[in-house]
Amino acid sequence: MRKVYLDHSAATPLLPAVKEAMLPFLGGSFGNPLSLHNWGDPAREAVDQAREQVAALLGAGSPDEVIFTSSGTESNNFAIKGLASALQSKGKHIIISAIEHFSVMNSARSLEKMGFQLTLVPVDKDGLVNPEDIRQNLRDGTILVSVMHANGEVGAIQPIKEISAITRERKVLLHTDAVATCGNLPIDVTDLGVDALSLAGNQFYGPKGGAALWVKKGVRIIPLLDGGIQEGGRRAGTEDVAAIVGLGKAAEIAAGDIVGRMNKLIPMRDSLIKGLTTQIGHVILTGHPQKRLPGHASFCVEFIEGESMLMLLNSQGIAVSSGSSCTSRALKASHVLIAMGYNHEIAQGSLLFTLGIENSADDVDYVLESMPSIVDRLRQMSPLYSKYIKTNKGGLSNAGL
Amino acid sequence: MRKVYLDHSAATPLLPAVKEAMLPFLGGSFGNPLSLHNWGDPAREAVDQAREQVAALLGAGSPDEVIFTSSGTESNNFAIKGLASALQSKGKHIIISAIEHFSVMNSARSLEKMGFQLTLVPVDKDGLVNPEDIRQNLRDGTILVSVMHANGEVGAIQPIKEISAITRERKVLLHTDAVATCGNLPIDVTDLGVDALSLAGNQFYGPKGGAALWVKKGVRIIPLLDGGIQEGGRRAGTEDVAAIVGLGKAAEIAAGDIVGRMNKLIPMRDSLIKGLTTQIGHVILTGHPQKRLPGHASFCVEFIEGESMLMLLNSQGIAVSSGSSCTSRALKASHVLIAMGYNHEIAQGSLLFTLGIENSADDVDYVLESMPSIVDRLRQMSPLYSKYIKTNKGGLSNAGL
Repeated sequence: MRKVYLDHSAATPLLPAVKEAMLPFLGGSFGNPLSLHNWGDPAREAVDQAREQVAALLGAGSPDEVIFTSSGTESNNFAIKGLASALQSKGKHIIISAIEHFSVMNSARSLEKMGFQLTLVPVDKDGLVNPEDIRQNLRDGTILVSVMHANGEVGAIQPIKEISAITRERKVLLHTDAVATCGNLPIDVTDLGVDALSLAGNQFYGPKGGAALWVKKGVRIIPLLDGGIQEGGRRAGTEDVAAIVGLGKAAEIAAGDIVGRMNKLIPMRDSLIKGLTTQIGHVILTGHPQKRLPGHASFCVEFIEGESMLMLLNSQGIAVSSGSSCTSRALKASHVLIAMGYNHEIAQGSLLFTLGIENSADDVDYVLESMPSIVDRLRQMSPLYSKYIKTNKGGLSNAGL
Repeated sequence: MRKVYLDHSAATPLLPAVKEAMLPFLGGSFGNPLSLHNWGDPAREAVDQAREQVAALLGAGSPDEVIFTSSGTESNNFAIKGLASALQSKGKHIIISAIEHFSVMNSARSLEKMGFQLTLVPVDKDGLVNPEDIRQNLRDGTILVSVMHANGEVGAIQPIKEISAITRERKVLLHTDAVATCGNLPIDVTDLGVDALSLAGNQFYGPKGGAALWVKKGVRIIPLLDGGIQEGGRRAGTEDVAAIVGLGKAAEIAAGDIVGRMNKLIPMRDSLIKGLTTQIGHVILTGHPQKRLPGHASFCVEFIEGESMLMLLNSQGIAVSSGSSCTSRALKASHVLIAMGYNHEIAQGSLLFTLGIENSADDVDYVLESMPSIVDRLRQMSPLYSKYIKTNKGGLSNAGL
């Protein structure tokens, strides 16, 4: 059976060159970067190089602005909690979008329990934040705004530059969760105008366990992990050298290849979107049609459930997801789709295809061949669909196929 | 030149079998354990297996009691902050020992800034906590005690069983930082009587990035990393599958080999201690002579500085450290030695040899051959030593050698 992996938002395969770069640090170069003897040297030099590679990918002013972490989730927790803690004497109000990843959302909720005030700004039907909504919610005591660069579930790319123009004018810090975009879209932190940015290697062909938070020079942050003097005293814990090296290598490769990757992914994405929305009735593209991640095609398929489609696609060798993998087994309707105005019934039909650089046009064709019969089969068993057909009989006979 | 690595408290080499176990997860098995499709299965099964392997090493009641983290530091932060937060409605008093690792110490200090009360219990000259000091400091409102299983700088093994007898009687939670002992000493969490225990794979031939916090069933802990539903909702973030698998494999190998390892390390340790303290004058063994880690030989060498010895040993191919690697580049006198009653001058002469299973008796002989001339050379340049010789002339002419 053909195997087609289209779940790159959940995990990307490690590039062979990334693995090669990591292997010495799972072998002879096992030293601790902080060791003062020779065994520490290769590890320390490799971590320094990785910091430069990540800084270069972001257009950062200095490698010292890059703090390595263990996951995008840790980066987001660190940013939200660490920046808010550092600024709490100035105020306790935080603004985030309603469609943030749970690592931002729940970090902000944790702060709320500790006495911070939280405002969620809405998004429109395309999943976009209106920068004016940020402006209107800024107030005395607002210390931090966090809006994701792009949403991993619906692919929508947020107007971060427009938002940062507002936050900078008001001298409020802006963090962006760029886990979905870093390595997949060109990023320049100066151009974006942000003060902190989260990224994760496992979203761009680097290792799980290798992630970072970029914090602009001069911006104070309270550590989430207290202890030793690693990462300039901002993130304690023995450095996971292999993962950091892998992240650095993945960043270096991405920096040289982002436009090429986009040029490969966008046509595949668009033919998948066009194919599914035209071949099958009642399929709704979620997220903005153009302002979206290069390899990202997300839909709500009416009358049926995302998990059922996922399982049948899996039985045909196709890997997809029906929302954020971080909550996949919770099987709740996505807070992202609800915030975008979809009702629970339609949100249940969420299906998410995320293409990667190893995919081909044939993979898209295979999906387009497989999907209609899967949808048809599930709709034949769907009480919602039966009800719909009865009340609209004759009018939309091609709704299933 | 001969190369002798004697800094296993800073980092251990990865066992080849551990690396082999990890490699598939840096290759074809790149899926996200939370994915509902087939690509997630190998990752999820491997994480489950690793959880069982770590649970078995600890004699844990259930694999679900094991929460994977990214480092011993994260485990300690999670334990101290997470357990204290969960219990703060019952009280805000925490007791730790004065010689805890900075990841425990500074986590407790962070809580202190948030309104918790902190008591540091002292240690004796051998680095041991007196359980009665714990008892005397327990009070209404004491919610958590944390005493390390063994200290990484001076090797002293604490009387955790005696301490847990007291904390259990008083129904106060006991956490132990077992980063230095887990995989190196037999551990049974039930026998120890603790409620939470931190461990790190890089201390027993597993990978950096693979660590865990064991939390006894029924003990509530507030997450340090908010977000997705990973680790039973207690630690969000995409699982670092390769590191977790490596930790599990290292745990499995350790479980079958701990006594063999101890039988190999203890004689080497003891001949190193005997050799250095008899061949060279004014060398003080730090930490308890018998109640100490199997491969751990730590000293204060009077009149000279640990870093200078470290550098000269390094030039002869020998890797050691002069204290905790997590603070090595801070070059401050160790809080551990100060707490044990050493003055700053003597504490500056700290030197730490930590043996591993790949060392041999020849390695110890090489150190014993190298050290006297290094100490002699440094003492010839030492104003402190000149002063000492002048005031004690004739009386201790063999102080240098």
